Amino acid sequence: MTIETARRMRGAVPSAIREILKVAERPDVLSFAGGLPAPELFPARELSQAFEAVLRKNPGAALQYGVTEGFLPLREWVAGRLRGRGIPASAESVMVVSGSQQGIDLVSRVLLDPGATVLVENPSYLAALQAFAAYEANVVALPGDADGLRTELLEEAVREHRPALIYLVPEFQNPRGTTLAADRRHALAAVASGHGVPVLEDDPYGALRFRGVSSTPIAALAHGLTFHLGTFSKTLAPGLRLGWVHAPKPLIRPLTVAKQACDLHTATLAQHAVVELLGTFDYEAHLGRLRAEYRQRCEAMLRALERSMPPGTRWTTPDGGLFLWLELPAGLRDDEVFHAAIDRAVAVVPGSGFFVGPPEHGFLRLNFSNQNVANIELGMARLGQTLSELLPASSPPLVHRDELSPAPRGL
Amino acid sequence: MTIETARRMRGAVPSAIREILKVAERPDVLSFAGGLPAPELFPARELSQAFEAVLRKNPGAALQYGVTEGFLPLREWVAGRLRGRGIPASAESVMVVSGSQQGIDLVSRVLLDPGATVLVENPSYLAALQAFAAYEANVVALPGDADGLRTELLEEAVREHRPALIYLVPEFQNPRGTTLAADRRHALAAVASGHGVPVLEDDPYGALRFRGVSSTPIAALAHGLTFHLGTFSKTLAPGLRLGWVHAPKPLIRPLTVAKQACDLHTATLAQHAVVELLGTFDYEAHLGRLRAEYRQRCEAMLRALERSMPPGTRWTTPDGGLFLWLELPAGLRDDEVFHAAIDRAVAVVPGSGFFVGPPEHGFLRLNFSNQNVANIELGMARLGQTLSELLPASSPPLVHRDELSPAPRGL
Repeated sequence: MTIETARRMRGAVPSAIREILKVAERPDVLSFAGGLPAPELFPARELSQAFEAVLRKNPGAALQYGVTEGFLPLREWVAGRLRGRGIPASAESVMVVSGSQQGIDLVSRVLLDPGATVLVENPSYLAALQAFAAYEANVVALPGDADGLRTELLEEAVREHRPALIYLVPEFQNPRGTTLAADRRHALAAVASGHGVPVLEDDPYGALRFRGVSSTPIAALAHGLTFHLGTFSKTLAPGLRLGWVHAPKPLIRPLTVAKQACDLHTATLAQHAVVELLGTFDYEAHLGRLRAEYRQRCEAMLRALERSMPPGTRWTTPDGGLFLWLELPAGLRDDEVFHAAIDRAVAVVPGSGFFVGPPEHGFLRLNFSNQNVANIELGMARLGQTLSELLPASSPPLVHRDELSPAPRGL
Repeated sequence: MTIETARRMRGAVPSAIREILKVAERPDVLSFAGGLPAPELFPARELSQAFEAVLRKNPGAALQYGVTEGFLPLREWVAGRLRGRGIPASAESVMVVSGSQQGIDLVSRVLLDPGATVLVENPSYLAALQAFAAYEANVVALPGDADGLRTELLEEAVREHRPALIYLVPEFQNPRGTTLAADRRHALAAVASGHGVPVLEDDPYGALRFRGVSSTPIAALAHGLTFHLGTFSKTLAPGLRLGWVHAPKPLIRPLTVAKQACDLHTATLAQHAVVELLGTFDYEAHLGRLRAEYRQRCEAMLRALERSMPPGTRWTTPDGGLFLWLELPAGLRDDEVFHAAIDRAVAVVPGSGFFVGPPEHGFLRLNFSNQNVANIELGMARLGQTLSELLPASSPPLVHRDELSPAPRGL
């Protein structure tokens, strides 16, 4: 007996990255594929103490059903952090979600009718594209450069496509690691406000800045229109599945109704434990340790790339987060590099999966947070060898660059 | 600036029950409103030990991102339990979800196009109706009686409405506490198989049978067509948000793709901790304690109802679960009873919210799991007084029964 699926499932493909991660899990493979934080920096002992404390002090509440909006002390803590970044948040504007991916899903559910347009940066975070696809949205992508989304193209795109939502990761974007420049944030906020277009500001990595100074979040510039997502996945641990949405207050109600139907509420126990942890643990010092370590790993990767990559290879220089974006020398394709690298026991993510529209095959995404410096050096040396061996011995390359992908855009 | 919401949100109303629960939270109120398990029976100490053990033994894995389908040892444990009930399950047919409400949402997402019909029992579990509404489904309800859904009406309804899904809670249904009789399960499976209609068998309470013998699950009778949902919310603790979907194997893939876009995966830490718990804890003995306690509470409620309710009041006699369903004497409305009961510091759920189509106002849902025997006796005495005082002193009643609700259906 065949069961027919709904129309919204027909365009849905499983995340290429998650499929790749399965290959990357081979124990002999050095993986730079996943967006995984460093497990040795998880505050496991402190979390264990926090779970013990809430299960001893107030087990009846910590294990019972909870309110859909989330545990009030956690909403208050989040609102305080956001106010510290210039966002006029309060507990009433914050909803706890089961990881910030759920925030993307819920905002989509509340805002997107089938056929609605979402404007994104190209390339873009894959699981956000999947969420928009599940609501049968029409995704229109604008190019980015070293300073993030090219906001000078936004006004015209908004006039042409009348989007229901603008989605972006302004800090250390996934996959490119780039950050939206301050002036572009103001430009984006002006266009969004001028046309009344809601903005979904996805900020999973903002706390992981290890260089430079933070710019104002878009939620502080276009307050009444911006949904701002954050998470503990990169700062405490992804396995907790705890994130938050700050939303324009009138939208908290529909988000709550949507979440009720999705999963009733986020795990009470994890919320209580994290509130307990934050009351005793020096979270700022912990973030300091994460930033120092990720800076070291990022710099090790940048040095190793300088040393190991053949001429014609370029890459971004992130100021934080987990990723950089590597542009292959002319003539190389991301998929052939992926397979050749796996043969050398190195896993990377082919960049083509992150593109909206025709995939570009000249890029790789590299994660620097999940391997130590020695492994980063070893892995980049292997990757460099892989690229060098795939390149034709003599120039010019067999296939001309322009046949493979458009001109690089300010990497 | 006003943000317009998607069409699917326009019919969405927040769960009336969750609104009522807010009133019921007043510390002086004896609540029989929520579907809350008894917090004093949560295995808090054992869970605390399990969290401590996994965070000591394998913190890197327990706190990291995990696979969307769920932690394999947990899927294997669930499959083993289901096989014990005659369902031909394997780890590959089981996906872990963030509470079984998410199972309802994901199955809806995978199967229901806007306008698709879902057949349900009337009255029905409210948050399932909300999930179907979010996918703009057309819900058609068939009546039930003391033996559950009246399956003799199913064949004609299927021919007429060509449903994309049949949804039901066969064991100790929410809100009525009734159980689908064995012969009706066979009849339902025959109609579903004959017409190729998928079935969503929602089984949150099945492990809480305290009287009688279990019937075969529908997933064992119409295997290739049935999605079977289970949860730890009623057996371990709702605050963990851990449930599962057993699905026809070809549907696990689309369910996984849907879940990736929703929340990537269910909390790794909670999954690891529960697997740890199940390896050391006598789960069957724990279920035995729950059943004994809930039986005692249910029987106390039934005795108190006998003692306290005015003539003309009737109720169901559940064999398990958390709820019974009370039919008010002619002339009383659920909403007036709700308000008058709150004035006496007793909370109940008006039954009208559970109906598809025109609400019937002659019923209340009573929870017996969340109060001890003394409170149940006190609460039912107060509720009985409330009803008696609301009833007109003399018969016949001012409003004739037939004007308020149809004839009772075999309660």
